[in-house]
Amino acid sequence: MTAGTGEDDIISRFFRPIATSPAARGLFDDAALLTPPPGCDLVLTKDALVAGVHFFPDDSPASVARKALRVNLSDLAAKGAQPLGALLALALPRPLDEAWLEAFALALGADADLFGCPILGGDTVSTPGPISLSITAFGAVPSGGFVPRTGAAPGQAILVSGTIGDAALGLQLRLDPGRAGFRDLPEAGRAHLADRYLHPQPRLALADALRAHAACAMDVSDGLVGDVTKMLAASGCGGLLRASQVPLSEAARVAIEVEPELLATALGGGDDYEIAATVPLDAVPMFRAAAAAAGVPVSVIGETYRGEGLDVVGRDGHPLQLAHGSFSHF
Amino acid sequence: MTAGTGEDDIISRFFRPIATSPAARGLFDDAALLTPPPGCDLVLTKDALVAGVHFFPDDSPASVARKALRVNLSDLAAKGAQPLGALLALALPRPLDEAWLEAFALALGADADLFGCPILGGDTVSTPGPISLSITAFGAVPSGGFVPRTGAAPGQAILVSGTIGDAALGLQLRLDPGRAGFRDLPEAGRAHLADRYLHPQPRLALADALRAHAACAMDVSDGLVGDVTKMLAASGCGGLLRASQVPLSEAARVAIEVEPELLATALGGGDDYEIAATVPLDAVPMFRAAAAAAGVPVSVIGETYRGEGLDVVGRDGHPLQLAHGSFSHF
Repeated sequence: MTAGTGEDDIISRFFRPIATSPAARGLFDDAALLTPPPGCDLVLTKDALVAGVHFFPDDSPASVARKALRVNLSDLAAKGAQPLGALLALALPRPLDEAWLEAFALALGADADLFGCPILGGDTVSTPGPISLSITAFGAVPSGGFVPRTGAAPGQAILVSGTIGDAALGLQLRLDPGRAGFRDLPEAGRAHLADRYLHPQPRLALADALRAHAACAMDVSDGLVGDVTKMLAASGCGGLLRASQVPLSEAARVAIEVEPELLATALGGGDDYEIAATVPLDAVPMFRAAAAAAGVPVSVIGETYRGEGLDVVGRDGHPLQLAHGSFSHF
Repeated sequence: MTAGTGEDDIISRFFRPIATSPAARGLFDDAALLTPPPGCDLVLTKDALVAGVHFFPDDSPASVARKALRVNLSDLAAKGAQPLGALLALALPRPLDEAWLEAFALALGADADLFGCPILGGDTVSTPGPISLSITAFGAVPSGGFVPRTGAAPGQAILVSGTIGDAALGLQLRLDPGRAGFRDLPEAGRAHLADRYLHPQPRLALADALRAHAACAMDVSDGLVGDVTKMLAASGCGGLLRASQVPLSEAARVAIEVEPELLATALGGGDDYEIAATVPLDAVPMFRAAAAAAGVPVSVIGETYRGEGLDVVGRDGHPLQLAHGSFSHF
């Protein structure tokens, strides 16, 4: 036959309806075509997810779609960029689970609309392995506005957006719901933690404030302590992080109060998708004001100093030892 | 530990050495940073490859790397674009096969240099499944210069670059080396077919000629007949393709002479990574001259006409029936 192949049918049924940007060219072409906004630099990022590694095989397809897009948007936000579009590579087992694919595509399209990041193209293939996907997201920053990971210098405040540890606790809750720390949690608290694990909230609203005031930034995806350690190492300075200043949600606070060992999970676990940044001390009030205006809470959690490494001080004032500072992808 | 994770080690040992473009930021950042060339549009493409589906699990890692990059570069070439850079997502089974990864990264770096397409970043993850990867390539065309797949109109010549069918025959040779058609092939002929399957040659040299003269173009990756059918359908016209005019290598010619059924393999098989284009009749001589100046042979293989569908005329002048016009990815 010279008519449509299976991939063409998949594109036509599931992806053409969500690829409505002119840059996607109706998914009829080999490639997408994007005119970059004048006076802008491009920010390019790509994250891969594998069933059984980055999400549970029984996660809903809508949750998988949202997570795949949002972890990339989180990278753009940390660099001060606003999204221009994304490409998807999706590898699916045979036979095709059409209900899964339909729900995945619908949720991806809805998130693309929600975050202003149109799906411009990609590739759908079969795999003898688990569902695997990668998304490449493109963003724009005004020329010279890229917020690097390498800009920290001694004498800056270390800040983080939102609350830390909810996602890692949500993962623990899923793995071991009867665990002591979760026993006293009301249903709303459990739902909050579970949702933070499943559905990252990319901090795109913080991008302008980061560009205006931050010396360096990264998104916290592999655990706060490990990621801040990486950021300072990349910048060539050291720092101090006070666990007592790390912002916690009410649900996390209750869980850690009952089971103090969960503090290490909160500080060292992954999937926060909050933004860690350093800001010169005199710019902190302006950064706070800009973040508040954007609707994003930010908290000072420590300072940078001359030297190397990240010292973590526990809530008792003593150095805190973490078995694992960050999630390893390999 | 708060020191480097496994992924950091992989980046540092295998990928940082090949990511030498300033846009890669030493792979120390969350994202790559690219200043688009002024006056250009961006062309974005993404292809995924899975071991056991798109390549043989025992293919050399160097061949896998080359194929993964080049199939994307072929898409850029077909759109008249020159590469700006690429991102890689790589999912590898545990335990890590370091020798495989080292050879893969070295070959990818060498190809990135060869084709002027620097590796700017990406993601490395583990998978319980087979080796899987996707590459996203970015290219630039002068504003308005994008060569669409949808530009064919009645009364244009259909042309193709290089020779067709070598890769599909190379795959058959690998699957069934004792097959009649391959028995009389000299060793050089066998090596030619095998190499064409393993190592696509992206026709980036043809990009300028396509931009100057082609009405539409696409790369031939899923089989000549199926892909030209798609291109004409996307453009809303019909066409005639003469099998006698389809350019064949000496090795393909010998194989098909001995076993005429292999003509269908050549015309319907995939992995050519040549460019099919339509060119207004009066521009064909100029297109030929520009292609020749770029060192790329091109051949007229048919014409477009008002209507729909692609009629394929066999070497005997009668309509040719192909069981499969193209490779299905799903």
